[in-house]
Amino acid sequence: MTIDRIINILMKSNKIFVTFHQSPDGDSLGSSLALINGLRSINKNIFIVSKEAIPENFSFLSLSNEIDGNLKEIPSNADCLVTLDCGNVERLNCDVKLDNRNFIVINIDHHLSNDYYGDINYVDTKAASVGEIIYRILTEMKIDIDTKIAECIYTSILTDTGSFRHSNTTYNTHLIAGELINTGLDFSSVHRKIFDNKKIEIIKLQGLVIDSLYTNDSKDICIMKLTEDMLSKVGVKECDSADLISIGLKIVSVEIAILLKETEDGVKVSLRSKNYVDVRKVAEKFGGGGHIRAAGLKLDAPIEEVEKILLKELEKELI
Amino acid sequence: MTIDRIINILMKSNKIFVTFHQSPDGDSLGSSLALINGLRSINKNIFIVSKEAIPENFSFLSLSNEIDGNLKEIPSNADCLVTLDCGNVERLNCDVKLDNRNFIVINIDHHLSNDYYGDINYVDTKAASVGEIIYRILTEMKIDIDTKIAECIYTSILTDTGSFRHSNTTYNTHLIAGELINTGLDFSSVHRKIFDNKKIEIIKLQGLVIDSLYTNDSKDICIMKLTEDMLSKVGVKECDSADLISIGLKIVSVEIAILLKETEDGVKVSLRSKNYVDVRKVAEKFGGGGHIRAAGLKLDAPIEEVEKILLKELEKELI
Ligand SMILES: [Mn+2]
Ligand SMILES: [Mn+2]
Repeated sequence: MTIDRIINILMKSNKIFVTFHQSPDGDSLGSSLALINGLRSINKNIFIVSKEAIPENFSFLSLSNEIDGNLKEIPSNADCLVTLDCGNVERLNCDVKLDNRNFIVINIDHHLSNDYYGDINYVDTKAASVGEIIYRILTEMKIDIDTKIAECIYTSILTDTGSFRHSNTTYNTHLIAGELINTGLDFSSVHRKIFDNKKIEIIKLQGLVIDSLYTNDSKDICIMKLTEDMLSKVGVKECDSADLISIGLKIVSVEIAILLKETEDGVKVSLRSKNYVDVRKVAEKFGGGGHIRAAGLKLDAPIEEVEKILLKELEKELI
Repeated sequence: MTIDRIINILMKSNKIFVTFHQSPDGDSLGSSLALINGLRSINKNIFIVSKEAIPENFSFLSLSNEIDGNLKEIPSNADCLVTLDCGNVERLNCDVKLDNRNFIVINIDHHLSNDYYGDINYVDTKAASVGEIIYRILTEMKIDIDTKIAECIYTSILTDTGSFRHSNTTYNTHLIAGELINTGLDFSSVHRKIFDNKKIEIIKLQGLVIDSLYTNDSKDICIMKLTEDMLSKVGVKECDSADLISIGLKIVSVEIAILLKETEDGVKVSLRSKNYVDVRKVAEKFGGGGHIRAAGLKLDAPIEEVEKILLKELEKELI
């Protein structure tokens, strides 16, 4: 079994390094810190390799201070590198050459598009989060899951499933969440730390985007705008599009939400659909791409023009 | 065991009636429809008694059309009345006298404050939702949990736990959720139906409330206003305060959120706290009440004055 081979290598290794994908999210951070906390508890030498430091909103996780962006390369005395939540070598958050090396690479992931670049590849596409796989490994190793480790894994699950909402959530996800809760973990506080961590400027920006929001005549398309003007009004430079576009999807009659984002070199468009429209198809018509329910594209034209073109194109999908 | 006695009575009864608390929520509606769907599947005569019809946003639930507000009293040929999610007789959604009757009352609830008004009382305060208790009863009865029943129980759980967020969520809640998912239930769609069901007017109102929002100097109190003017501007008469006040709590630095709601006879104030402030204590000073983290009060004064008084009082709690 792959899991036994992984445990075997981890137990034999003197120096273990862990890395994850670039722009790390709750799953990569939570699963890597769960692994570090767990293996430290049995006195293993295990360290994070990352070009990026921990994002502020995940700094509550145990040992997150070790994700400081300082160790960017795999040291020459490494025995083993564990890569988490990362489908290919190019996306790894470190400088690494996989040919001509002295360490073993263990690739643990749940992405369908994984390249199997490791010496051992544990790619479970049924796992909603890599945190679940790490939970399996740690419990198999008989490592005590304390509230610190539980918090890391719960964070992985919560972010990758959108609080048990996305269709990747399984029976096993819930079972593990239940077991994590049983450790005495203050899971309500994890929800607050992950979902109620906005700056007031971002909330104010949401207000401005809502003011700009409208629906088409049949009320199934919601259009929202984010202009340079709005950003400077509230005093922020950037803002996560996902949070903004989800506002439009909260409207009961809406099937498609469009967010038009003014940038220096044209308009960045995010598209989301709720139930049946394939927004990737539309995005691809304009050189963009993505998934069936979430896609994006870029057009170099005035925002009002992009708005008209897209509205027309998307209305065709709803006939 | 209480559960065996309940099953025994249900099996022996020819005519079973089900009711729940006034202003029924997702848990009372979901648990009652789960029970109705389940017992119908084994050909029992079971009916809803309710003064209120099903709220529009829960009309997706199977057999919800039977919650039409027409049957308001318990018919004289009733063998059994099952009351769900309701702590006392006064709050029941039907006209019923419990003295001098020919039917058995089964009181199934999870409120700490239950009056034990039934002949049989199954009050499990550890259950996050009554839906979980109904799940236990139906599985104990070996009734097949199909996707329709699963959808009802999942709705109960989702609404009473705030999507597995509130501290009432247990290992058992997750275990049941996992088993419901395994029926093939489209749980993502239940999330959408419950949380993404807003009218555009309500979203627009949120925008206006965000425009009014500000924090105090130390950024730990967030003040929001809902005026008659805002309501008429977007064209709605009423709005759920809980959704609005949660916007303020999304701000990372905020411990207390205040919503000031202009009404015909003074200002209705909602108070929420995140981690440590006892807002009930403050509400009680002004003749209001509630819980530690959620309380309310009413003051007959201009909104600006109420704002000043409360801000001063709440800042004392944060020193
Ligand atoms: Mn992931
Ligand atoms: Mn309830």
